[in-house]
Amino acid sequence: MPASTVAGYVFERLADLGIDRVFGVPGDYSFPIDDAAMDNPRLQWVLCANELNAAYAADGYARRKGAAILTTTYGVGELSAINGVMGAKAHRVPIFHVVGAPSTRIQRLGLATHHTLGDGVFGNFFDLSAACCGVSASITADNVVEEMERVIREAFRLSKPAYIQIPQDFAVMPVLGTAARGSVRPADHRGRSNPAEVKAAVRAITERLGQATRPVALASFQVGRYRAQSQLLAFLKRSRIPFAMTTLDKGVVDESHPQYLGLYVGQRSAPASAGKAVLSADLVLCLGEHIEEDFNTGDWSASIDPDRMIVVGPDYVRIGDSVMTACLLPDVLAGLARAVKPVPERRISAPRPLPVTGDADDPVSSATLYPRLQQFLRSGDILIGEGGTAAGRCAPLLLPKGVGFESQILWGSIGWATPCTLGVAMAEPKARVVTVTGDGAHQLTANEIGVMGRYGVRPIIIVLNNGIYGAEDTASERGHVYNDLAPWNYHRIPAAMGCEDWFSTRITTVGELDAALRKARSHRSGSYLEVMIPDIESQPLPAAVLDHLYKQNTPG
Amino acid sequence: MPASTVAGYVFERLADLGIDRVFGVPGDYSFPIDDAAMDNPRLQWVLCANELNAAYAADGYARRKGAAILTTTYGVGELSAINGVMGAKAHRVPIFHVVGAPSTRIQRLGLATHHTLGDGVFGNFFDLSAACCGVSASITADNVVEEMERVIREAFRLSKPAYIQIPQDFAVMPVLGTAARGSVRPADHRGRSNPAEVKAAVRAITERLGQATRPVALASFQVGRYRAQSQLLAFLKRSRIPFAMTTLDKGVVDESHPQYLGLYVGQRSAPASAGKAVLSADLVLCLGEHIEEDFNTGDWSASIDPDRMIVVGPDYVRIGDSVMTACLLPDVLAGLARAVKPVPERRISAPRPLPVTGDADDPVSSATLYPRLQQFLRSGDILIGEGGTAAGRCAPLLLPKGVGFESQILWGSIGWATPCTLGVAMAEPKARVVTVTGDGAHQLTANEIGVMGRYGVRPIIIVLNNGIYGAEDTASERGHVYNDLAPWNYHRIPAAMGCEDWFSTRITTVGELDAALRKARSHRSGSYLEVMIPDIESQPLPAAVLDHLYKQNTPG
Repeated sequence: MPASTVAGYVFERLADLGIDRVFGVPGDYSFPIDDAAMDNPRLQWVLCANELNAAYAADGYARRKGAAILTTTYGVGELSAINGVMGAKAHRVPIFHVVGAPSTRIQRLGLATHHTLGDGVFGNFFDLSAACCGVSASITADNVVEEMERVIREAFRLSKPAYIQIPQDFAVMPVLGTAARGSVRPADHRGRSNPAEVKAAVRAITERLGQATRPVALASFQVGRYRAQSQLLAFLKRSRIPFAMTTLDKGVVDESHPQYLGLYVGQRSAPASAGKAVLSADLVLCLGEHIEEDFNTGDWSASIDPDRMIVVGPDYVRIGDSVMTACLLPDVLAGLARAVKPVPERRISAPRPLPVTGDADDPVSSATLYPRLQQFLRSGDILIGEGGTAAGRCAPLLLPKGVGFESQILWGSIGWATPCTLGVAMAEPKARVVTVTGDGAHQLTANEIGVMGRYGVRPIIIVLNNGIYGAEDTASERGHVYNDLAPWNYHRIPAAMGCEDWFSTRITTVGELDAALRKARSHRSGSYLEVMIPDIESQPLPAAVLDHLYKQNTPG
Repeated sequence: MPASTVAGYVFERLADLGIDRVFGVPGDYSFPIDDAAMDNPRLQWVLCANELNAAYAADGYARRKGAAILTTTYGVGELSAINGVMGAKAHRVPIFHVVGAPSTRIQRLGLATHHTLGDGVFGNFFDLSAACCGVSASITADNVVEEMERVIREAFRLSKPAYIQIPQDFAVMPVLGTAARGSVRPADHRGRSNPAEVKAAVRAITERLGQATRPVALASFQVGRYRAQSQLLAFLKRSRIPFAMTTLDKGVVDESHPQYLGLYVGQRSAPASAGKAVLSADLVLCLGEHIEEDFNTGDWSASIDPDRMIVVGPDYVRIGDSVMTACLLPDVLAGLARAVKPVPERRISAPRPLPVTGDADDPVSSATLYPRLQQFLRSGDILIGEGGTAAGRCAPLLLPKGVGFESQILWGSIGWATPCTLGVAMAEPKARVVTVTGDGAHQLTANEIGVMGRYGVRPIIIVLNNGIYGAEDTASERGHVYNDLAPWNYHRIPAAMGCEDWFSTRITTVGELDAALRKARSHRSGSYLEVMIPDIESQPLPAAVLDHLYKQNTPG
């Protein structure tokens, strides 16, 4: 049944992408939009605790499903979501942010109305929301068909969020124009390569690879965003090239892959041999862009020589000063998979799981927790690491076969992991999501726990309680005053938020941790483990890190 | 002791305004700023649960204290706060939003760094934050003295937030230039009137007042923002003019004033005689702008004829098409208080408190709750009404002498009231803050409860539990799907967030409500009353309202 209204059509077309959830908070300028989402039998409304949480949830969902819908209301709603949408832009996650605006009647009369500055001015929030996106559209009844195709195409081409604003009167009008129909594959919307450029790029890369004696690949998270994993795997298989991933990229290839070198984080790679392999390679083939961000390079502890680097970007290839353009990542990877010859064989030292240590009576510490977590994970699990300490300590773990990983270390917005858990779990209903977050980060967005309980999502959430913003306390070098947290009784949060059937407990010893993990695995609803872990970040960072984070900023 | 660094100087100058709290969340680009705030003996760091909450808290604090400091970190932090800062702009609340940016060394090298898009671009978030403010500045060691004086002046002149961004390396440099010193009165920073314009305005207004037979004044919240209450009271006393306030303005004059007509909300004024007096007046003197916003006029149920209206704006006076400019509100009010003659005497029907009804065994309902709340309030209390249902139902209450009131019905961002409570309570440590919020709104920002407990703030928070977004459910006319809330056990929230000495309870009957209010008054820490009140918004709004909110948006 074709949608009869503009808002109905917008959701129809987004549902055609395979999206089956709408994350958001309703609001009165958005009611026609909220109604349209509710009326679409392919979509489930997921009412989040607030708009920023909804944006994080949409981020998590889109990372796994390829795209997500976020809906908020004019002004107050969309501005609350901005930080989450900007994070999706940084991490190249397509989120369709659909926002209802006051009716054009209200706008043309210049009325003072709520969710504005009371000045009869509209349009002033459009630019703020659009700045967090790669593409934006102001929808009318007669542009909605063309605009939706454009917005979908550009969101996937750029792999960035899209902003779609619909005045409430237009939202309920009939669509003017011939509606597009039928399911849409994102791949059909990412534009097309110029075959000559792809050919030239593949030839240039294979030539350089043929000359290299110690080449290494870096698999970028962007391969996942452009859904080119199968092309990447075919290339890895055919070329036999050893590869590493950074923290930002972790999760894009299964870590049980025989050519996997380990985590590359500059001088702080794990194992160190992975860092050595990358830094001593005579050719580093970046499959997707390699971002030399501070957290992603061990605080810029090493940099890869551009002359030894080939970058296969989302829609370009760069080799030295030579740039092939209009060649899309999946097409270049597919071409490489067909044309490449195996690289010289050599022994690589495979990464190994961390050894499990500690006795039942020992207090939980980073040393006893993380190896246990690694051992606990099994195929089908998805591990989410909150920024700050958790992502950093999860990253070096060697994940068992079939375990996914998500983090947000580039944008690094604290509080992201908890609502992201909701989105990931909804995108992957068969997976068990295991989330590790710090207490400080958790306080920002813990209200999303109630939403998980309500919708029957059953993650295992591990909250590390050390009473402070641990990562910050170390980096700031100063006293605790502004890093000391309100002393929550975290394990009582799920019940207070209505998750009475969750397994929730406070853990102090290694024995309690082992028992709780076992119980969480078999528990039929969500689990929430408050882990008392005073050691986190009690050790100062190395001097070199502090130099980068802080001292280099003093003058002189 | 003069501050030795740029960041130290910024806080020194803000503390000179009488501000004694810093609301915010620390972050690594902001550490030098966080340290400077910590080092200032006149300032207390208040670590909020997240940045949006911190902005709301700063809003509440600034409403009572005249100005506030908010501090967040680059990108992630400031963008999370945007909605709260924009709300302060709408409600003309000066908040100084101080944000740390990556060092200019990082910026000039174009490094990829966290809290950015990883593209070596900086500056892109400045405009987003600045758009929520009336004035903004990028601070250097050699502009900080002049810029701080400019920023303070413009923030008070416009009564709007100010954005102050400081790169972390500049933050720790010594100030270059001669520091300004000594306490600052906001009044000294609001610019100066042109005496000739003030004289002309006062003459024109008194002339029109002299001709009027049934004049009425509307006291605007802006009188409070420009700290002109004493001038207003002097004018009211001398002129004997009856006056009303709208919901947006409620709280600016004590409601025990003998000339107070009641709440003006167009056709839905309370009492109705207040609406009649305003709408039948031959002259409506607006002291501060009167904003005919939908919620403030009973959904535009009536409009005041501009020909019968005089507007005394923040820095102008408008009489018909004649505009006097460069005349500041306090100066015009002071001039009027000296020059005005008493208006013709007439009987006004004074507003009365709502009658208290209901027996101990009755379920709590709007009819039994709000009159009890009115009776409960006493001098020194400050009532805060969350947007949606609570503010609307609190507004018609006749507040006892010495009771303050805050709401945010223009910007209308749900969730505002809970963190605002923290800020108001810190600005007025001797007052008892009584906050009424809906369950839906509370879920957005409830994590601020833990912050209140931690800092020993002792509000009385009343959470109305009807299981839905009540106001929205009515306005949207449609089923509950997207208005149904996660079923929290609200009264268990304080203990879960560490407020174990709070009095927290769930209330069903009128008798329980009476007992709980009594207990809350005498309790030595905070109180949290979860009130089961299923009737809220179960009645549909009148057809006229629905026409405005929704039906007028259908085409045809």
